[in-house]
Amino acid sequence: MVNAYAALEKGEALQPFAYDPGSLGGQEVDIQVEYCGICHSDLSMINNDWGMSQYPLVPGHEVVGRVAALGSAVTTLQVGQRVGLGWYSHSCLHCEWCMGGDHHLCLSAAGTIVGRPGGFADQVRADQSWVIPIPDAIDSTVAGPLFCAGITVFNPIVQCGVQPTDRVAVIGIGGLGHLALQFLKAWGCEVTALSTQPAKEAEARQLGADHFVNTRDPEALKAIANSFDYIISTVNVSLEWAIYLNALRPKGRLHLVGVAPDLSLPVFPLLAGQRSVSGSPLGSPATITKMLDFVARHDLAPQTEIFPLAQVNEALAKLRSTHPPYRLVLKC
Amino acid sequence: MVNAYAALEKGEALQPFAYDPGSLGGQEVDIQVEYCGICHSDLSMINNDWGMSQYPLVPGHEVVGRVAALGSAVTTLQVGQRVGLGWYSHSCLHCEWCMGGDHHLCLSAAGTIVGRPGGFADQVRADQSWVIPIPDAIDSTVAGPLFCAGITVFNPIVQCGVQPTDRVAVIGIGGLGHLALQFLKAWGCEVTALSTQPAKEAEARQLGADHFVNTRDPEALKAIANSFDYIISTVNVSLEWAIYLNALRPKGRLHLVGVAPDLSLPVFPLLAGQRSVSGSPLGSPATITKMLDFVARHDLAPQTEIFPLAQVNEALAKLRSTHPPYRLVLKC
Repeated sequence: MVNAYAALEKGEALQPFAYDPGSLGGQEVDIQVEYCGICHSDLSMINNDWGMSQYPLVPGHEVVGRVAALGSAVTTLQVGQRVGLGWYSHSCLHCEWCMGGDHHLCLSAAGTIVGRPGGFADQVRADQSWVIPIPDAIDSTVAGPLFCAGITVFNPIVQCGVQPTDRVAVIGIGGLGHLALQFLKAWGCEVTALSTQPAKEAEARQLGADHFVNTRDPEALKAIANSFDYIISTVNVSLEWAIYLNALRPKGRLHLVGVAPDLSLPVFPLLAGQRSVSGSPLGSPATITKMLDFVARHDLAPQTEIFPLAQVNEALAKLRSTHPPYRLVLKC
Repeated sequence: MVNAYAALEKGEALQPFAYDPGSLGGQEVDIQVEYCGICHSDLSMINNDWGMSQYPLVPGHEVVGRVAALGSAVTTLQVGQRVGLGWYSHSCLHCEWCMGGDHHLCLSAAGTIVGRPGGFADQVRADQSWVIPIPDAIDSTVAGPLFCAGITVFNPIVQCGVQPTDRVAVIGIGGLGHLALQFLKAWGCEVTALSTQPAKEAEARQLGADHFVNTRDPEALKAIANSFDYIISTVNVSLEWAIYLNALRPKGRLHLVGVAPDLSLPVFPLLAGQRSVSGSPLGSPATITKMLDFVARHDLAPQTEIFPLAQVNEALAKLRSTHPPYRLVLKC
């Protein structure tokens, strides 16, 4: 039996929940969970915000652990190996997107906690292709959030072709944004943090920001017109997007990873400056591997606060009600 | 003296207008105009729709002619050479955009008819860098519209990295769209025409469309979900953009060259499918040259109807009131 924490109904507090995982598929791997990050998407799934939750729901999709068992056809992993698992746990491997290396765009990709039990548990199961070895240089207490928050902001840096010569900006310095600042600084860019909270300036600079702009200051906002080759928005609220389009230099791109409400965009700045607006979800296993190597080489890390799994409801309450240090992680 | 046709005041009919062009700058070229296309932007400038018109206003920015005089520093052209000139006539040559080959993004690029007299005349003046030799294979009666309508839809094919393996669609089969269909077909793509006018189907197919979709048919619109790698919109009206975002395959791009009203866009299809929305204006001299070579090799041409310059007001009336053959051209 797997010992987990689950919401038995929509929106309920988590409680101990044991289940029989059944027999292991040939391509599957069981991971003995050591740490699991808590993500806002876990809250959304507990609350069925996206209409795709099934209960009992075991959250947890920022998993760090050791390979506990291998399906008969698994060739890429060994028992005892330290691995991570993120939002996706399965994809078809055969469609054009999987075959093209874009497994995260596979139309039948399955979420780790969508109709399956996740990582708030002593064990979790996934297809071998989504179970990614973690380089020794990355500590287990910080590795988990890389598999969801991290890849969400790292994937677009790769996919959008961000260059080390680019001037870039990050909107929102939270769980995603504090990783984006670190990645972009290590990428070689000139980095600006855009935040509504002036109190975050010192920390943003420590994380890698060369500049900090308080986006509640209309004068400061005016001054960034025509400044950036690339802006990544990590927020899920409506902004006055025209300001950010105009903050792009010609050929610049505004990239969204936060699920914001509908955008209202003026067309003229797009046309006149040959600018673009885009979005992306998570990233492929190959890009996760690339990210982990980059993180290890540059000694980057999410800022985390650790809770024991038994205090998962306290941790969820903290995530709901306050601005905790950037990522909360459960010791499982 | 140059003999032209000008609007003396906002919105007025054009009338004969002679002016002294003054002395020729060292980098400048005088072109003896043979043909000049009529563009909707000429109407917009006559009406001061964009608040940047100066009167008397001589329209005309799709010029075909012969080099009549060379400034002392001109090294790239010869008197008598057949050349064309489009929306831009000057740029600084020294900013990062000009130096990077993106002269059309130069912040001080000057429009051929913005504060200068244009090509509805026997002569027009421009900087040598925007005066582009026309390959012999392209007929003078059809070359003009390539310099504005043509480059507007050709530039994004190059800049967006459209591939011959892509499935593409063109929204709006008019002056721009009928060229986009030809370019994309010759580019090797699978091409779909998207139009509100079913009567255009046969012509669209002749121009290069493999498929035709009547966008007033809700069922036909539903059927194109997840179909295209690239959609270029040539229209200047509001569409239900969510439909076109969802008509993109993963990683697809919706590219606008028509000055539409503000866009309202749902974020989820951008994020989930790693899609983008972008825009662009015209193109650089290097890209115009590339387009002309491509047009000559593939024997492409805008569809034109010719008017003598003295009937310019009749031609403008036709452009205003009806759907003429795709581009009108003045014989000057």
